[in-house]
Formats: sequence, C-alpha cells, structure tokens
Amino acid sequence: MAANLCSRPVAPGSYRVTDAFWLREMDLVRREVIPYQWEALNDRIPDAAPSWWMHNMRAAARRNAMKRAGKPWQPAGSGREMRFETLPEKGQAPDPDAFYGFVFQDSDGYKWIEAVSYQLMRGPDAALRATAQEAVDAICAAQEEDGYLDTYYSLGLRERAFTNLRDHHELYCLGHLCEAAVAWHQATGQTDLLNAAMRFADCCAEKLGREPGKKRGYPGHEIAEMALIRLWEETGEQRFLEQAKYFIDERGRRPFYFDEEERERLGEAWGGPTQGSGYHQANAPVREQSEAQGHAVRAMYLYSGMADAARITGDTALRAACKRLWHSAAEEKRYVTGGVGATHVGEAFSRPYDLPSDTAYSETCASIGLAFFARRMLQMDPDSRYADVMEEALYNTVLSGMALDGRSFFYVNPLACDPEACKTDARLGHVKHVRQKWFGCACCPPNIARIVSSLPSYAMTQNEDTLFVHLYVAGETEVTLNGRPLKLKVEAGLPWEGEASVSVLEGSAEGTIAVRIPGWCRDAKASAVTLRNILTPGAEELAGDEKGSREKSGYVYFTGAWEPGDRVELYFDMPVRVTAANPLSPETAGQVCFRRGPVTYCAESVDNEAPLCLWRVDPAALTADPDSIRVEDAEIGGMPMKRLLVPARIAAASREQPLYRDWAPEETEDGTLILIPYFAWDNRGETEMRVWLHAR
Amino acid sequence: MAANLCSRPVAPGSYRVTDAFWLREMDLVRREVIPYQWEALNDRIPDAAPSWWMHNMRAAARRNAMKRAGKPWQPAGSGREMRFETLPEKGQAPDPDAFYGFVFQDSDGYKWIEAVSYQLMRGPDAALRATAQEAVDAICAAQEEDGYLDTYYSLGLRERAFTNLRDHHELYCLGHLCEAAVAWHQATGQTDLLNAAMRFADCCAEKLGREPGKKRGYPGHEIAEMALIRLWEETGEQRFLEQAKYFIDERGRRPFYFDEEERERLGEAWGGPTQGSGYHQANAPVREQSEAQGHAVRAMYLYSGMADAARITGDTALRAACKRLWHSAAEEKRYVTGGVGATHVGEAFSRPYDLPSDTAYSETCASIGLAFFARRMLQMDPDSRYADVMEEALYNTVLSGMALDGRSFFYVNPLACDPEACKTDARLGHVKHVRQKWFGCACCPPNIARIVSSLPSYAMTQNEDTLFVHLYVAGETEVTLNGRPLKLKVEAGLPWEGEASVSVLEGSAEGTIAVRIPGWCRDAKASAVTLRNILTPGAEELAGDEKGSREKSGYVYFTGAWEPGDRVELYFDMPVRVTAANPLSPETAGQVCFRRGPVTYCAESVDNEAPLCLWRVDPAALTADPDSIRVEDAEIGGMPMKRLLVPARIAAASREQPLYRDWAPEETEDGTLILIPYFAWDNRGETEMRVWLHAR
Repeated sequence: MAANLCSRPVAPGSYRVTDAFWLREMDLVRREVIPYQWEALNDRIPDAAPSWWMHNMRAAARRNAMKRAGKPWQPAGSGREMRFETLPEKGQAPDPDAFYGFVFQDSDGYKWIEAVSYQLMRGPDAALRATAQEAVDAICAAQEEDGYLDTYYSLGLRERAFTNLRDHHELYCLGHLCEAAVAWHQATGQTDLLNAAMRFADCCAEKLGREPGKKRGYPGHEIAEMALIRLWEETGEQRFLEQAKYFIDERGRRPFYFDEEERERLGEAWGGPTQGSGYHQANAPVREQSEAQGHAVRAMYLYSGMADAARITGDTALRAACKRLWHSAAEEKRYVTGGVGATHVGEAFSRPYDLPSDTAYSETCASIGLAFFARRMLQMDPDSRYADVMEEALYNTVLSGMALDGRSFFYVNPLACDPEACKTDARLGHVKHVRQKWFGCACCPPNIARIVSSLPSYAMTQNEDTLFVHLYVAGETEVTLNGRPLKLKVEAGLPWEGEASVSVLEGSAEGTIAVRIPGWCRDAKASAVTLRNILTPGAEELAGDEKGSREKSGYVYFTGAWEPGDRVELYFDMPVRVTAANPLSPETAGQVCFRRGPVTYCAESVDNEAPLCLWRVDPAALTADPDSIRVEDAEIGGMPMKRLLVPARIAAASREQPLYRDWAPEETEDGTLILIPYFAWDNRGETEMRVWLHAR
Repeated sequence: MAANLCSRPVAPGSYRVTDAFWLREMDLVRREVIPYQWEALNDRIPDAAPSWWMHNMRAAARRNAMKRAGKPWQPAGSGREMRFETLPEKGQAPDPDAFYGFVFQDSDGYKWIEAVSYQLMRGPDAALRATAQEAVDAICAAQEEDGYLDTYYSLGLRERAFTNLRDHHELYCLGHLCEAAVAWHQATGQTDLLNAAMRFADCCAEKLGREPGKKRGYPGHEIAEMALIRLWEETGEQRFLEQAKYFIDERGRRPFYFDEEERERLGEAWGGPTQGSGYHQANAPVREQSEAQGHAVRAMYLYSGMADAARITGDTALRAACKRLWHSAAEEKRYVTGGVGATHVGEAFSRPYDLPSDTAYSETCASIGLAFFARRMLQMDPDSRYADVMEEALYNTVLSGMALDGRSFFYVNPLACDPEACKTDARLGHVKHVRQKWFGCACCPPNIARIVSSLPSYAMTQNEDTLFVHLYVAGETEVTLNGRPLKLKVEAGLPWEGEASVSVLEGSAEGTIAVRIPGWCRDAKASAVTLRNILTPGAEELAGDEKGSREKSGYVYFTGAWEPGDRVELYFDMPVRVTAANPLSPETAGQVCFRRGPVTYCAESVDNEAPLCLWRVDPAALTADPDSIRVEDAEIGGMPMKRLLVPARIAAASREQPLYRDWAPEETEDGTLILIPYFAWDNRGETEMRVWLHAR
C-alpha cells in the first residue's frame, strides 16, 4: 500500500452501472431530463420562461460573422448593462442580435453538454450525440477571435469584459465550459470544445493574474478553480493548474480586488473600501478562512477547488484550511438531509447550528457542491466521514431536487413544509411546496443531471496501487492496479439492503482494494473470500484483526494478489437510527428524526394525520426495542423503496382548547407514524412534510 | 344589579394611583418620556432623525396666514406626492414651508397631548400645561378655514385630500386628534382642541359618507372609529357616533372602496379589482369577519371601535363578530407575553398558532391595541377572560416596550433574542436586541405614554349601579353608585403579591362592586367585611356561596348598601405556573414557560449560562413539587420585583461533538435557572433572552 493515499475518480465511462437504485436515476436523466432540458435551452417549452441559451449563442455567432465580414453590427440595447437579467423591452419582439436572460445563462448549456457526455460514456446514442454536437458547434461559433466566450458581454458590451468579476459570471461560465469540454472530450475524443475552453482560459489569463498590466481578479462565483484543474488533468497543460492556483491564492487578499474593480467601474460613486465580501468568500485569504460562509454553492465550489489544489500541490496550509472549512460546513452547518445553506438571504450559510426546518434554503446545487467537496476531501484523505456526508447528500437532498418522474424540480429543500403556509406567507416566499417545471434561473436541474450521470466518479477513486470503494453501486468496472488491469464486479443492494461485494471477474494484479465501512452501520463485516495471496500491509498506522486486512479511518484495506474469483464480501447492519442533533442546534432540541442506511426519512400528511407537529415519538422506547419500528416495502412513483412504521402517539389538540394552559402530561392517542425517504417527498400530491418529529 | 352590564371606564383624573408598581411607571412617563418626546417633536434631540412635527404645524399655520392675507404661497416640492416619508432634498436646507416626515406624523403630537392630558388629570403642572398649550395652539393654527387638518396634504397637496385613504393617514390623524382633544378637554376643560377635532371630523364627513356626492371611503389605518365614539361621548353630538358607525359599516363592502379610489387615482394604470385588502381588514364587511388578520395595530384599533359600537348600539351581529375576532386574536394568535402580530411582513397577524419566538414582530403598539380591545370587550361583557388578556398585555409586552429608565424603546418584542444573530441575520432585520432611543416612525413610545398615563381607565369601569374592578391598582377613587358618591380606597400588591382590598372611605350608596378573580390564580378568596346591608342579587343567572355575593364569568358581585368601613377583601393564590401552549402551536411543542400572577418570565444570559437553548426543565417534577421553584426578591434598574429560581439541568454540548448522533438520554448537569419578568429584559446590557424553555 502506497504511503500517498491520494486518489482520482474512476472515469464514468469505465463503470457500467447495473444498480437497481442508481440505474433508474441515471436512465431517468437520460430519458426525461436531458431531452426536456434541450427543449428548454431552445426555448421550446410552452408556459416556461425562455432560457435564451441557443438564442444567445446564435446571436454571438452572427456577431462574429459580421465582424469578420467587416459589417456593422449593433444589437438592441447595446451598451446597456443589466445587473442580473436582461429581457426584451415590454411589447417588443426579441432582437435576434441581442443578449437575453441571466448573466450566467451560457453555463446552462455547458452543464447540459457535460451531462450528455457522461451519458454517452454509459452507452452510445447517435441522435443524442448529434444534438450535443449542435450545441458544441453553436458554442464554438459564438467564441470570439481572441478566444473570449461570454455572450452577455460579446453581444454589445465586449469593451466591458472583465470589469465586474464580482457580480457577473464570465469566470463561472469559463468553469462550466471547462467541465463540459473535458467530459465531451472523454466521451467522444473530440477536441472542439476542449480547444474552445483552452482558448477562453488563455484569453482570461491574458487579462487576469499577477503579472504587470493584468488585473488581480478572481471569480465572483467560483467553479473555475476546480474546472481548470480538471482541464490541466485532461490536457497536461501546466498553465491551467497555475491559473487555478492563482484564483485560489489571490482570493481575499488585500486590497480587496472586488473593491478595486468597483472603484474603477463607479469612479466617484464608489462606496469605499469594505471588509471584503463574505458572500463571495473573499473577505480573507483562503488559507486563513475557518468558517463556511456566504453563498453556499459558491463556497462549496471554492472549497472543492481548494481541496483539489491542496491534494495536487501538497500544500499543507491549504489542506488545513480545507479541513477547517469542511468541519464548519459539514459538522456545524449541515442539515440531516445533506443540505447546506440555511438562509435564503444570499442563498447562504447561516450561523453555526442555525438550521431551521421550514425556512431552510438548502439549495439542491449546494448539496451537489457538498458532494463535490466531499469527494475531493476523500481523494486527499480517505476518511469515511467524508464519504458518509457525500452519500447523505447524494441519497437525500440531491435526489429530492428532482421528482421521481424527472419532470419537476426543487431549488429549495425545506425539512418541514406546510403547503398552506407556503402559499400565503411571504417569509416562506422562497419555499415551493411543489416541484416546479423549470426555473428562469435554472441552475439546479442541469446540475442534478450532471452529477447523477457521473455517479461512478463518486463511487470509486483510485491511485497507482489502491482502489477505494466509497459507495456501493452495483455494476462492472475496469481498473488498473500497479499497471495491471482488473475487471471487477460490484454487487450491492443499497440504500435498502446492507450487503455488498466486490469480485474480480478478469485480470490479475497485486494491490489494495479499500472498502468503506459506512458510518451509519453499527455492525459491519468485511472479509476477503478465496483471496490466496495476502500481502502484509506496509503502513504502520493500520490496525485491524481481519487476516490480510487493516482498517483505517473507516476503510478496510485488503492488500494482496487479486485474481478471478477473489471477492471482498461486505455486510452492513442497517438499523433504523433514531437521530438527535447536537444540543447546540436550537431548532431541533427535543426532536428526533429517523434514518436507515444513508436515507433520511420524513413524514407526509398524505400518510399521516395532520398537522404533523402533533405527532410524538418516544426515542427511549424505540431505542430499547428497535424491532418495534417496522421496515416495510413500499413503492412511490413506481420506485420500490422501504418505508418505516414507527409506533407513535398523536397529541389531542383542538382549537377549542385554550392557547396556554398549566402544564400537564399531554393527552395522546396511540398511532403509527409512516415515514418515507426524504428524497421521495412531494410525489403524491400536495402534502405537509416534516423530517424532525417531537420526542416525548 | 342591573341586567345591562355594560360599563364605561372611570375617568383617569378621578383615580389617584398610589400603587407601587404603576405609580413608578406613570411617574417615569411624566418625568422622562413626556419631556423627551416634546424635544423630539421639536427636533431638538441630537443624533435622532427629526420628527418634523412642530415644523409641519408651523408651516401649515404660515400657509393659512398667507392664504388669509391673499399672498402667494408655494413650498418646495409642492405637488410632489410621497408614498410614505418626505425628506428634504439631499444637501438642501429644509424649506420652512414644506412638509417633511412620515405621512402620519401629525399623530405623534396628538398622542403626546393625550398623554400629557392624562398626566395633568393626575396632578397639575403649570409648565407642562403651558408647553401642551403651545402644541394645542400650533395645531389650531395649522387647521385650515374649512376645518381640514392634515399637514401632509395642507402643505402643497390639498387638492388631493381624501384621494388615498388606503395608504395615507388623514383619518388616522383625525382619530388621534379626537382622542387628544377629548383628553385635553377632560384635563383642562378647554374646548380649543375639541373644537378643532369637531371641525375636522365635520370636514371629513362632508366628503365621506353614503349621501349623494360623497365618497364611500373609510380609514386605511383605523382608529377614527373608536375615537369618534369618544368624541360623541364627550360632546353628546350624535353625528360623531353616526360617523363612526358609517366607517365601521362601510368597511369591506363591495365594490371595495380602496379599489375605487385607486382606479380614480391611477386611471389607466390601475391594476384592476382585488379581493379587498386583508392587510387593512377591508376584504369583507366587518360583521362577516372571523379571523384577526392584516396589520395587527390596525386590526386591534378597528375591533376596539367595533366593540364600542356594538356596546352602544346593541348590535348583536357586530357583537358576535367582535367575539369571533377576539377568539382569533387572543386564543389563536396571541403570544404568552400578551403580544400580537407574529410576522414582520406587513407587521401583521400570521396563521393561527404560528407564533415564532425569535422572528416575532409583536409590536408594542399592537399589544396596546389588544388592551384597548380587551377593555372594550369588558365594557360590553364583564368576563374575566378579557381582563386576563388585558392585564397580560399591560404587564408584559406594553411595558417591555420601554426601558426601566424610560429612555429607550422596543418597537418589536421577540420572545427569544440572540444579539449576535440580530446583528448579522437579515431575517431578523426587524428585531433590535437593544432598545432604541427614538424611532423615525415613532408610533410606539407616545403610545406607551398615553396608555400608562391613563391606566385607571383600564383598572375600573362602571355603570349606573355597578363598579367593576378589573385590575387591582392601589389608589383612591371617587365613583357614583346609583347617583350617590362613594370614595374608595384600593390596596393591592400586584403583580408581586396576591392580596388586595377595596374599602369605602367616604359616602354611602347602594349598588354593586364587582371584583375580578384573575384567571392566573387557583385559589381565590373574595369576601365582604363589615358590610351590614347585603342585598339579594337580582339576576337569576348569578350563583355563588358567599353571603351577599354572586360569581359570574370570573367576577364576584357584592351587592349592598355601602358605607365607610365596608371593605371587600381579596386574596389570590399566586403560584408559579408552568405553562404549555396548545399543541397546535408548532414552535412551542416540548417547551414550557413560567408565569406568576400576570407576569410572564424569561431567562437572560446575563443570569444564566448561554446558549439558553441548552437549559432543560422538568415540568412534571416542578408541577409535583411547586415549592422547588423559589420566588425571590430582586431589583433591576432600581425597580423591585420578584425573580424565579427554577431547578433545571443544562445539556452538555460542545462543538467537538458530532452534529447528528444516535439518540441517547442527554447528558446534563444540575443547575438553577434564574428567570426575570419579561418586561424587565434587556435592562442590564447585551444579553441573550428566551421565554420558552425546553422541557425534558
């Protein structure tokens, strides 16, 4: 076993998923989400706000053609800078040459191409590839001669490019372009989009950096950091790694760049120096940051890039910052559903332990970002605590973001929802009680599409001699251990059954297969069967009692010579966990929630008498007699799952009773509370929902 | 005893308060609040936003003088209609002829005169009276020839008077003018302000009403309803009662007047018909309303006027509506501190049982309005449940609105407050963690001044033959029973001691003295001592076992011939009440709060280890052994009071512990929780505060 435990994700294309749970989700994305999103990008969804994506790309291509031909070109509203969203003048037809939509609209199509690429890695589809090629061609045609590629600025505001990195999203679009380009290259071998990404990255690097004459700018909305590292990994071009490191290192230094650029933009009207922007994680150099703060998606993307850079460069200060920020985000500011970002104000992190249920923001994209960050921490440091959170995010809030039929989406994922309140209460204005068809600001649906489509890269990572199995996703995969190929088969019944195995189908190699023991099981068995040549583990710090195996940080390392027939067998006890929060969380004192395996459960009023705040569970009794909770097969939206039947009591309450009274033991009636997986809520019509239930 | 139990409040001037508790508050208002507010009305408070009150009155007087002299007059910004607040142009000196401040600014001075009048009834003060005369003169000089009196419109917008009753506050100012004029007349016998009020009321009636050619308008912000009834009571002029009834009866009828006036104002740009405005309680005729809704102060003022009208006219449908609205406000939407209005959005009532602690609005003025409404319900129907709520409002949220030194004020009264959260969390932007010196929109401080200064009118009401004692406020008062004067002495130790008495000092009369048995006592004794001539109660429905007394709806009626030496003695058990909320309130499930007598208690971190969410109390144990809670003398801000020492436990918690864990009995340590009266919180420096405490 190598001393360096750093690892890289397996390529999604090398893992044929057969998993009952995830195959359904991946196929749903392929069958429903991707075609629907293509229609959306082309403004062909009736009753939905236009995306303007293809419109903008085509307009930019026309602009380039006119410029090349030396013809005059002047779109409507040219020179008019909008803060966030541009729409046609009221009553006017859209100008085919003008930009419309949100400033970051270009990224929607990039995310779509990235998702399509992962799907094409799974299996060919000539029609889908042709459609994606159409998108790729449109992007390439929209790119300017000098490599600049951001239709918001290209369409009439080019002279202002790179003047508002804080609020506008050029570098965010660069990041998503790189992610799409790498995936498209991996899926098809084509370099068209990869070249476009490299040219735009170079165009940005010409303007931004520490060299004389450049602006010391960095992204207002992070993602370029991790995306440029991926571009470096794919192309081997060191300059992209340097560019990513520059963005990370420069961030939050004094004088604050966002102040500088604002002063330049506003001149006299500049409001004066700030303490830096916590919203943008730009109020201190990243190595000095300790608290996850500001816009949650931006934070997660930044920290992901930091973790990548720390792993690659071995920068211990950066690694320490990543660990502190992880602790803050995951251990002080994370919902039990794997959601982050408690407040809608700034779509941001709130104070430590401030985790309100009904006003939660918990944006789907932030949960996706948490999974990004978690996998990168795992790549740097294979500790199952990261995998536990990654798994929690993936099985709960990421999936709750999408209806079981793949046709509607949550942006905000509350942990308690009363439809009547959502309809009338402006304080809940950000919470939708039913999933929406499409969002004007459509970041979440394509983000779900790309993470679900690339699931294998979260399931396994590897290095020269060690394969890490983080998630048990049934399928077949080909890996290389110490230069020798191995074909492996994973069998698993997650998230419903706690049995799994990793078997060698073909090949022969020496090396280590490290398997994760999930934090949610109390009794786990991991054993190697028919493994004939056990090697002695080299690392001192490993300790364990299985023959040939050593356990460290929640992973069991099986080291040996692997041949067909060898198998690692795993059994994970999967009790229903009655869960309490840290008492420092004011919202959840005196309440418990239920989890089983990686799945967090919730109660819906379609199954249970409302209001759900009347239900009482007795955690002491349930803990003393775990079998009193029945785990039962169920099906929602055609998806098989397990539901929980929890002995509970319901408080007698009536509007005739006084509002306040002398305390007395509550009058309650016996009942059974039916709990379903959180990800499956709101798939059976309007319903009240609650994750945390009152204890008695 | 008369069959008609309707009653009127005793005149504040007829009640010499000697009560240790209330005398301090009334003197505080006289000594601190009233002089400070006079300085504020004259824009002489350094570092505070100007009030512009005297400025506007003087400007309007100058206008009148110029008009009378036939001279041209044109203030800056003339004809410029502002939505809510008018300020001088940036960098420009204020125009002495222009209106500045909030559209309802006139009312601030009216409230001040009303408070001063009540204070003058308590005892003469030539200097104070001269100062108030200055204000009265300024108002009279500001009134236009035709009786119109609203400086916002008089100063350059007069032609638009009565065109925006919904958003602007002419009729609100009329209401406060009437209240001030009646009080000033009662205090001084002067008719100057009374004439001004009558003239403005008549001016309004000329434009508004059901008669042909008039607009069918009514107040956007209610108060004129109850104020005009007071004007009728004081002057005997029937037309003011009719005007009040018109405002009440017309409200919420279709077509909605606020739609009509907006259409007229906006013409083409009108947004079209609405469902009426729930914010203004104008979405249905008042007799059809059942749920307390919209802006809480407006609602309380409307319902108060409705109760007045129902009492006077005997309108049973109106009375039934009052009872429904009372139930909604007091039994489904009231904080345990006597606050109402749970949401800052619209300063409004939220859904039934939605009573969040930390984001509470619970405006001081709304609690004052609840006391108004409660007393009027009592006047119509002497049921101690109304008095219980009135008392709760007065002893808790009304007083928490003012610092113990009378120098700073809360507008919003949360039931849980974490200063750090208030400083940084925009969701708590409306909550101040320390009382403020003065508000630009300064409705609450002068409202506290007028209710505290008129406290006797809440303590006692009477009719021809019955005196109702609602609150036990030590002092001496003269009343007339069946035409014969009686001088009475009240002795009481409320809110700290549960003993009280009502003694006849002078005079001789036959009639009834009805004394309230508070809802908060479990064991009460009310007996008549040395009462020689007990009359048999006449009303069949009364039942009781005290000789000569009958109990009904929480009042004990002592009927007889009263002579010097006669005394009603009362003893109220005053246990600490461990209080739970109706389980329909999601916020407070699993929590309790503590009350003793009319006082609601809270914990502050200046006394107790923070965060306060870690404290656990055991209601079963505390209820089984009430003596385990110690009631102890204390002093805060120089005010003697009782604090509670409650055996409690504090949960062990650390940021090192995981955020979520398998439930297990909580590790706790023994401790004692120190609770202080809610009204006294935030008088000892920055502190966390909590009313509801977790039960275990």
